[in-house]
Amino acid sequence: MIAEQYREMLGAKSVIRTLAEKAAERAKVIGRENVFDYSLGNPSVPAPQCFTDVMIRLLKEKDPMELHGYSPTLGIPSVKEKIAKSLNERFGMNYGPEHIFPTSAAASALSHALRAVTAPGDEVLTFAPFFPEYHPYVDLTGAVLKVVPADMKAFQINFEAFETMLNEKTAAVLINTPNNPSGVVYSAQTLTKLAEVLTKKSGEYGHDIFLISDEPYREIVFDKKQQPYVSKFYANTISCYSFSKALSLPGERIGYLAVNPACPDAATIVNMCGQISRGIGHNCPTSLLQLAVAEVLDQTSDFGIYEKNRNLLYECLTDIGFEVVKPDGTFYIFPKALEEDAVAFCQKALEYDLVLVPADTFGCPGYFRMAYCIDTEKVERSLPVLRKFAKEVYGK
Amino acid sequence: MIAEQYREMLGAKSVIRTLAEKAAERAKVIGRENVFDYSLGNPSVPAPQCFTDVMIRLLKEKDPMELHGYSPTLGIPSVKEKIAKSLNERFGMNYGPEHIFPTSAAASALSHALRAVTAPGDEVLTFAPFFPEYHPYVDLTGAVLKVVPADMKAFQINFEAFETMLNEKTAAVLINTPNNPSGVVYSAQTLTKLAEVLTKKSGEYGHDIFLISDEPYREIVFDKKQQPYVSKFYANTISCYSFSKALSLPGERIGYLAVNPACPDAATIVNMCGQISRGIGHNCPTSLLQLAVAEVLDQTSDFGIYEKNRNLLYECLTDIGFEVVKPDGTFYIFPKALEEDAVAFCQKALEYDLVLVPADTFGCPGYFRMAYCIDTEKVERSLPVLRKFAKEVYGK
Repeated sequence: MIAEQYREMLGAKSVIRTLAEKAAERAKVIGRENVFDYSLGNPSVPAPQCFTDVMIRLLKEKDPMELHGYSPTLGIPSVKEKIAKSLNERFGMNYGPEHIFPTSAAASALSHALRAVTAPGDEVLTFAPFFPEYHPYVDLTGAVLKVVPADMKAFQINFEAFETMLNEKTAAVLINTPNNPSGVVYSAQTLTKLAEVLTKKSGEYGHDIFLISDEPYREIVFDKKQQPYVSKFYANTISCYSFSKALSLPGERIGYLAVNPACPDAATIVNMCGQISRGIGHNCPTSLLQLAVAEVLDQTSDFGIYEKNRNLLYECLTDIGFEVVKPDGTFYIFPKALEEDAVAFCQKALEYDLVLVPADTFGCPGYFRMAYCIDTEKVERSLPVLRKFAKEVYGK
Repeated sequence: MIAEQYREMLGAKSVIRTLAEKAAERAKVIGRENVFDYSLGNPSVPAPQCFTDVMIRLLKEKDPMELHGYSPTLGIPSVKEKIAKSLNERFGMNYGPEHIFPTSAAASALSHALRAVTAPGDEVLTFAPFFPEYHPYVDLTGAVLKVVPADMKAFQINFEAFETMLNEKTAAVLINTPNNPSGVVYSAQTLTKLAEVLTKKSGEYGHDIFLISDEPYREIVFDKKQQPYVSKFYANTISCYSFSKALSLPGERIGYLAVNPACPDAATIVNMCGQISRGIGHNCPTSLLQLAVAEVLDQTSDFGIYEKNRNLLYECLTDIGFEVVKPDGTFYIFPKALEEDAVAFCQKALEYDLVLVPADTFGCPGYFRMAYCIDTEKVERSLPVLRKFAKEVYGK
């Protein structure tokens, strides 16, 4: 018999995907260049040339038996060593290779981290607005995802709501900073307070509460800022990283998990990831990509376009009169819709060939997300259309 | 709290790994070339040059945004199409792209297949001798792996034992042909009978019993034979394939799952795999490798060395007086030990610098596995040592 649990999931269709399909249909009629598709969070800048060069060099020069051979269960030691060194230098940490577990991007890192620190029935708390894929990531482990209502002012953390929801069943807290969909970076103040609450509650409940930090946008921070490194604030932190956005390699499924060395179970957790991997059929990311990214750890794609797009959109949206928090990073912006029902709002926008995503599934009804990982020229052409839409439909 | 289920697994150490470690230690003393290490099933012939050429061409010529972009959840359509076409031409099947799901090699294919057709508490039957990793693959889904005792004469299927063990809880049967560790290929007769039993029992129990066919060694068959294509014999078959052995790419984690189009739930199962993937954090194998293997589907590494090694070892072992079934393929041979306790036997062999793996964990106590994916020159040098060991210790 086929498994009902997964068959039932087939009915539910992603809002984002449905919108993207509509946009694609419309593109066939009026041309792709005339559809202002802000729906998909796909990097729009190429991988840096240094990455391609390293890949070609490895393929040309390295013995294929060694290059394409099995990675050890816990990852290639030289790669783990380089990742630890890079994190230590950039963020003042003291990781060793034994704290690093290479994964098939952040989705896989989260899958391992969640299984390592939760048991079926446990609760995992996350904060709205949140990436909707957290639901399958968490729910299919047997743990339960609970969403803490948003801090609607600044999209930091609503601590009042958070403290009400924490309870003895809370095994982990899952955060995402810089945040998809708000673009906001959690401040040092937010992270300090979060750590204080978690430490206090871990003591009260008599068990550790782990902080799982999903960091695929870590390098995409604007105004020459750097985001505070989450793990520095709380010992029991598992950082989940992906090169998908930093190197514009979303299809290559490469990233890692790093457990804070100050976590008493750090090395055990990494070893357990090797066992979890057997159960979910991962067996490490590809050897070639492990070796390649390890050569370009401190490089990124050119994010200038994202910052430019952020500036153009933020200025235009505030000028029109949208309520919107200025994003610190990522390639998302998260304004309040001009009517209560963001689904209706986005539906109307579609008639202007503006593809916007209503934020109901992100845990913030009434808001919408724009993914501005598109050409700046297109952003520029979309601005008068945005103004026209707001004026004609909402009198703004 | 960290998950006890996985922490407990850390205690158990793989026999193969322990042996490999001992071999590595010994190699430090007497030199790697003097340790006859038959423990590890790692391809010992390089990836074909055409694969490397395709990879370099893709990296040089293709737009990096397209090349490294997200794969659709169900795999890259052009890749699925090519895989279907190749299988249809080679095995007279009628797959469409909707029946193919690219995976991170066979481990991932098995992970998806098992989750698609079992629920927690269900039983999965496999036949000794079997690949010990089936235990974590199955057990960590919540289903239970049951091992049918071996057909000790020919390492085909012990149908008497099989029929006794089938019951209403049997959701799937997991086979591996060409077989690790026996090297035997299931005959058309075996597969026909297996299909008959499964069809009869599915009817009796009123639910489908799925056949999950693990086929990483499919292309490594000797004497110019071809193995019968399992899925042709039984409609409810899910084939799990890997390029790890065929193209000598074990570290690159690339393969696929193919559901027989005659299975009434075929397309649904593939769609469900997309949902399973979200839960276990796979999100498809890497885009680059999907595109690359699709260009070399009908190529393999040169397996001449494996066949030559098989011949040398089979001849020598039978000449010494070992009881052994001649392998039809893979790079394994599976003789009966010269004493009842194969662990003791392998321990004694180690004193002759022969690294052999006792088959207790493969479900065949008293036997041992030799993985002859090593240089032929080394096999040749090992033969007099094998003879000396058998003579001095067992008077053979």
